[in-house]
Amino acid sequence: MSKLLIVGTVAFDAIETPFGKTDKILGGAATYIGLSASQFNIDSAVVSVVGEDFPQDYLDLLKDRNIDISGTEIVKGGKTFFWSGKYHNDLNSRDTLDTQLNVLADFQPVVPEDFKSPDIVMLGNLHPLVQLSVLEQLERPKLVVLDTMNFWMDNTWDDLMKVIAKVDALTINDEEARQLTNEYSLVKAARKIAELGPKYVVIKKGEHGALLFHDEQIFFAPALPLEEVFDPTGAGDTFAGGFTGYLAYTGDISFGNMKNAVIYGSNLASFCVEKFGTERMQELTKEEVNQRLQEFRALTQFEINLT
Amino acid sequence: MSKLLIVGTVAFDAIETPFGKTDKILGGAATYIGLSASQFNIDSAVVSVVGEDFPQDYLDLLKDRNIDISGTEIVKGGKTFFWSGKYHNDLNSRDTLDTQLNVLADFQPVVPEDFKSPDIVMLGNLHPLVQLSVLEQLERPKLVVLDTMNFWMDNTWDDLMKVIAKVDALTINDEEARQLTNEYSLVKAARKIAELGPKYVVIKKGEHGALLFHDEQIFFAPALPLEEVFDPTGAGDTFAGGFTGYLAYTGDISFGNMKNAVIYGSNLASFCVEKFGTERMQELTKEEVNQRLQEFRALTQFEINLT
Repeated sequence: MSKLLIVGTVAFDAIETPFGKTDKILGGAATYIGLSASQFNIDSAVVSVVGEDFPQDYLDLLKDRNIDISGTEIVKGGKTFFWSGKYHNDLNSRDTLDTQLNVLADFQPVVPEDFKSPDIVMLGNLHPLVQLSVLEQLERPKLVVLDTMNFWMDNTWDDLMKVIAKVDALTINDEEARQLTNEYSLVKAARKIAELGPKYVVIKKGEHGALLFHDEQIFFAPALPLEEVFDPTGAGDTFAGGFTGYLAYTGDISFGNMKNAVIYGSNLASFCVEKFGTERMQELTKEEVNQRLQEFRALTQFEINLT
Repeated sequence: MSKLLIVGTVAFDAIETPFGKTDKILGGAATYIGLSASQFNIDSAVVSVVGEDFPQDYLDLLKDRNIDISGTEIVKGGKTFFWSGKYHNDLNSRDTLDTQLNVLADFQPVVPEDFKSPDIVMLGNLHPLVQLSVLEQLERPKLVVLDTMNFWMDNTWDDLMKVIAKVDALTINDEEARQLTNEYSLVKAARKIAELGPKYVVIKKGEHGALLFHDEQIFFAPALPLEEVFDPTGAGDTFAGGFTGYLAYTGDISFGNMKNAVIYGSNLASFCVEKFGTERMQELTKEEVNQRLQEFRALTQFEINLT
């Protein structure tokens, strides 16, 4: 079976949307990536860190999905990374209310022996030096995908450039792509990002879908039009989990197959936003995913003849 | 040959974008719709009104594309409708600097005899009572498509409801769909619009593409990712011209063929924005349109197998 190595936060989130608010619930980039990728029959592992306050139930939830968490350190006496945010009425923007790094502040990732030669690596949003440190522990994988965000552009630019130079693909949202390149046009932004290293660039536009760029080729996957988006938290990470999970499962990293991976990412993300936090992803079945794939087909495929 | 009747403004525009500004140039909804639809081998006519100040060259430009302008009245001593606007830096929003209704204020549309039994009718953005008056002069066409905007919602709500109730399809932009229905979710908005009359609803999202709704079916066409959008003026009307032109040309108003029509609309609109005003549409060739259709295919089509 193909091996997918996931690096990222496993955390507590407290979320407020126009539809309600939660106490501390299970969150974190690696959690969403792992749950999403677990829809595929692959071997995956999460390298992360939590505090002693982190419920065993949450860890079991990942384990039960065949995710290796031997590389998820539990720091004695430590407190788990906590993020709290409030979404605006349109759900397209949010304010961060609180960020407590806790055990994340001193995180030294250790990749388990079994995953030192993974097929695919998904470096979830984290300090670029932590992402780099993971890469240094590995045999060169088939594909390394990096996710990042504006915080690291603002605060650790040089380190970010170092890790970007070493990866094959970058997933990033539209505003962040613009910030990274100082280009408004996403076509130009993607080209500039490719010059920094990644041969593949995925620009996530939230409810407006996702674009995949490679050389002069472009592919677009829409977001599924939903009656209601309940909570966008984790949608981007769920997308990344679907993208890399599908690539690991198929073992095919051609551009043609990456199109499919982008569709799978969008598919899984469309479920994530239907309930608070990871709730929807926990109950999601393969039948639902396959059913929705048909909806994506109906939404995008056409038979046209030249006039 | 199929007949397409187009109603809308033929006008002067003065446009300012971050890339430059124009003096009074050829503009108007019916102009863009007509130029776009003229890519197809159909009979089309434009019902509109201009003043005596309107250059014969501009009228010839439409005539030369086999557009019947016998229903475009030239008002002696009258002045042509004039609109002037300035786009913001992101080109997604604009300020109207000046609107001079002129001959449009007393416009009484008269449909030429030859076009009283058209196959398809495209009612471009105009006073709803003018749109209604056109419908009253016609044998029931196969398909009537209406375009409108927020101005008519703000000022002539009841009249707008009357014409909406009589049409088969509505094309409208996302913000206006939300204003019309008081629903943020475009899925809900489309459903509410269908309850007002139109069985088909096209929601235009500018650079984020267009959604086609019919019963519980949804189709999505992306906008082509462009390096630079030069001037968005007329893109929505060009979309409408491609949509209705293709439907008239094929004579097939099934949902499956409407998907193709939406792709053609997006295709033609992607050219419109590349230069100021109608400039790009005037020089556009069938070869370019067919070439870009391949780009739309590459952008959206995928071959996926269930996992």
